[in-house]
Amino acid sequence: MSEKIYVGVDLGGTAIKVGICDAEGNLKQTYEGPTKAEEGAEAGMERIAQYVRTVVEQSPYQWEQVAGVGAGIAGFLDIPKGFIKFSNNLGWRNIHAKQILEQKLGVPVQINNDANVAALGEAWGGAGKGIPNCVAYTLGTGVGGGIIIGGRIYEGFGGMAGELGHVSIVPDLEAINCTCGQKGCLETVSSATGIVRMAKDAVERGDRTSLALIENITAKDVFDAGKAGDEVALRIINRAAYYLGRSMASIAVVVNPQRFIVGGGVSKAGDILFDPIREIFKKYTPEHAQTGVDIVPATLGNNAGIVGAAGLLL
Amino acid sequence: MSEKIYVGVDLGGTAIKVGICDAEGNLKQTYEGPTKAEEGAEAGMERIAQYVRTVVEQSPYQWEQVAGVGAGIAGFLDIPKGFIKFSNNLGWRNIHAKQILEQKLGVPVQINNDANVAALGEAWGGAGKGIPNCVAYTLGTGVGGGIIIGGRIYEGFGGMAGELGHVSIVPDLEAINCTCGQKGCLETVSSATGIVRMAKDAVERGDRTSLALIENITAKDVFDAGKAGDEVALRIINRAAYYLGRSMASIAVVVNPQRFIVGGGVSKAGDILFDPIREIFKKYTPEHAQTGVDIVPATLGNNAGIVGAAGLLL
Repeated sequence: MSEKIYVGVDLGGTAIKVGICDAEGNLKQTYEGPTKAEEGAEAGMERIAQYVRTVVEQSPYQWEQVAGVGAGIAGFLDIPKGFIKFSNNLGWRNIHAKQILEQKLGVPVQINNDANVAALGEAWGGAGKGIPNCVAYTLGTGVGGGIIIGGRIYEGFGGMAGELGHVSIVPDLEAINCTCGQKGCLETVSSATGIVRMAKDAVERGDRTSLALIENITAKDVFDAGKAGDEVALRIINRAAYYLGRSMASIAVVVNPQRFIVGGGVSKAGDILFDPIREIFKKYTPEHAQTGVDIVPATLGNNAGIVGAAGLLL
Repeated sequence: MSEKIYVGVDLGGTAIKVGICDAEGNLKQTYEGPTKAEEGAEAGMERIAQYVRTVVEQSPYQWEQVAGVGAGIAGFLDIPKGFIKFSNNLGWRNIHAKQILEQKLGVPVQINNDANVAALGEAWGGAGKGIPNCVAYTLGTGVGGGIIIGGRIYEGFGGMAGELGHVSIVPDLEAINCTCGQKGCLETVSSATGIVRMAKDAVERGDRTSLALIENITAKDVFDAGKAGDEVALRIINRAAYYLGRSMASIAVVVNPQRFIVGGGVSKAGDILFDPIREIFKKYTPEHAQTGVDIVPATLGNNAGIVGAAGLLL
């Protein structure tokens, strides 16, 4: 029983999910409890420590096997220091998370932001297993991402590497404002929010589409309409896919990964999204940068965050 | 005299330039001789070895101080094996360059492609000195580049990382074919060739420009006309700068370097090129990815290749 285990914590606004991974990124045991963020950061840190102890107790492993604990957190972090500057969805500010958890648990602790951690999870234990250099996209409300080099998250100079939602890609004539303050970001067209906005615009313009009958259009509605042959929905999906594919074509000659992994709610649309992404990638990428390179769906779903957090300790 | 020295070789079609660098990337001594590529690869390899011995003999250093020899070569290479598959401008094919030079010289040898090596030279001993994470562009006949991470060239999965000339960036409506077989590459607008093409197109279209009076327009002519206030020339320069700036905005959220270095013949244009690049970068990059990040001209000129080749040994 000398095998090392790695504990991952996915610290969300409502629930804290914890899990144990082996050294190959296989998720062996999970546990989940409420965050109760409103009770403050001190209580929250104690709760994390408690859930970590619980998941190990409930598992066939011994505490002595724990190599360390990683946590994925949405917010502004000082990653090397393990410090939470501010987390919007927790309402916590200025927390020495790494230090506090290391004191409570007596093992090394690492924190990182949730998008990076999800990317690492997929790269290590999911769709990128065995592939050291991957680029992962998470298509949800926004577009998140992570650059994995040699099996590790690459942060860049100011921690902004892998912020793929803000790749500058839409031509000026079609560009709209992004939440980041710039124009023409990938996120404005390829996130769920972007897809819904394009659908609403089409309905408002009076385009002939089945989407006009839906009250609160979701990205899933757009994909369902597209699968049923709705031309307007297909145009929207192809536009989202076009910019994703072109962003990958650029990334292919910047970091030249072996695999692009696409996860998040929007990615569940399947071939109707992946087929045009692959077509555009093929069209805009020099041959040498696409040889042996593939674009695949994420496989871990909501567990990517736990697995990636555990992977921070490697 | 136990200080280590690093010898760099810039293997060009007509001349072989060699030089000695200290461990900080300072170029201490150079030597140059003809390539005589037409005499074949065997004679060429012997000539390289001879020039390397000569530059050390002529220097204040002893042969025992040589930590190794690096060579930058234009062509298709198997970099880990140190093998030249094919070099167009030398006309050489299937040469075990690393192995042959190691036998002749008795020190470790590394080879890499010329664009990567020039980028490393600037990053190590030039404009990027002391900055571990840089992205370097070389604006010449084409657009070359290199991604430097932790002071080393990042190659990517298939050796295509840093092929910045082929970042997919021009919108379809304005995109033209690139030599790489794709459309809309950065190189089609921001290389000397791209700038000259835009100038010729403007003249052929009958645009009112002083460039119409020049027989064989060069990129320098376009910059000179721009500096003299020619509106058409300025429009062309701004277009080349616009796509460079937008490519940097994307790279800022992919690898988030601390510094962008711009070298090559075109970069000699100075502020008329750098001012709009910086303006566009500022406009399209999220604030967090531009804080502390700068865009600077290369400083080593033609010596970047020698210095970077020497840096391969680090």
